[in-house]
Amino acid sequence: MDDDVLRRGRPTCHVEFDEPTALLVGDSLQTLAFELLASQPIGEPKQQLEIIALLAHASGSRGMAGGQAIDLAATGQPLSETQLQDMHRRKTGALLQASVLMGAVCGNPAPQAWEGLSRYGSAIGLAFQVVDDILDVTQASETLGKTAGKDLDANKPTYVSVLGLDAARRRAAELHELAQTALRDTALPDTVALAMLADRVVDRES
Amino acid sequence: MDDDVLRRGRPTCHVEFDEPTALLVGDSLQTLAFELLASQPIGEPKQQLEIIALLAHASGSRGMAGGQAIDLAATGQPLSETQLQDMHRRKTGALLQASVLMGAVCGNPAPQAWEGLSRYGSAIGLAFQVVDDILDVTQASETLGKTAGKDLDANKPTYVSVLGLDAARRRAAELHELAQTALRDTALPDTVALAMLADRVVDRES
Repeated sequence: MDDDVLRRGRPTCHVEFDEPTALLVGDSLQTLAFELLASQPIGEPKQQLEIIALLAHASGSRGMAGGQAIDLAATGQPLSETQLQDMHRRKTGALLQASVLMGAVCGNPAPQAWEGLSRYGSAIGLAFQVVDDILDVTQASETLGKTAGKDLDANKPTYVSVLGLDAARRRAAELHELAQTALRDTALPDTVALAMLADRVVDRES
Repeated sequence: MDDDVLRRGRPTCHVEFDEPTALLVGDSLQTLAFELLASQPIGEPKQQLEIIALLAHASGSRGMAGGQAIDLAATGQPLSETQLQDMHRRKTGALLQASVLMGAVCGNPAPQAWEGLSRYGSAIGLAFQVVDDILDVTQASETLGKTAGKDLDANKPTYVSVLGLDAARRRAAELHELAQTALRDTALPDTVALAMLADRVVDRES
């Protein structure tokens, strides 16, 4: 939808093939995710249903697809930081948070752990997008594997255009701290891998 | 994807709004189906998973999306009846068959009933498309609620273009008979509603 010609350093699907093919591949992969989650032995059937519901909710109108619709409607519009945050929580954050919680379901976590993991997922989800906005203006296309400066060219509101570069960097650091605090609040015995993932989301250069 | 301006007598979504909106509505409604199937109490959790797997399989690359890809690739190409049948079994038939089997799952049918319902669903799924191809050339747009003659104009292979109108009508009647035979083979006590549905699929005028 952003009509970018590059992803991960390779031509995007609609450029390599055509738009209908790209659409059908997207539809097919989305249903494949649900098919795998429903047909592979993952845990108890009730847990599998919970995982499917989390993914579906995060992908749909109240998650990724809804956030993308807000994004398209917001192009060329001034947005407040709250509106921008709402958009990104849906568009990118919901699916990242869901990926944390889908894993959590399998461990039957205590309410305190679930709540902490939920906050952790929300924080890294938003941090990912803030960092994305920063990298869009600070990195070259070769490093990103997608066209740099595209959001700015498209007149799209981003954390950098709304807050400025320095404030966007501070926001990323705050979200990183929120994620680490949330992990400690889970009282889970081993959260090292999740803590490293939060570092990676914020420190990444592409 | 067929760029038609009418569905059910109303402007299509991409005409009334725009293409990105139509895409996002499609993505959202597809995930909503899985969200509802996973989060509503329908039957035993194991049955719900089976229902989700049926829908996902019928919607994806081996079903509707794959059939649509074959359809796009086939425009302007000569197809044999076997190739045409394979395309339609995926594009339309798979989802109609799945809708029958999703209901069947809830009743824990015996193998004989399941097999008969599966053949019934397959027959009415293909019959629906054969009749669609016939109506496309015999009905006016006002009756259809979508643009008539569109497949012919787009140089798409259809049952009418491959077999001719009379043979296409005979094919629809054969599939109707196959569906009714399959229903009897289920040995289920009451298949009246399903038999009427098969009549309706073949007798419909829009």
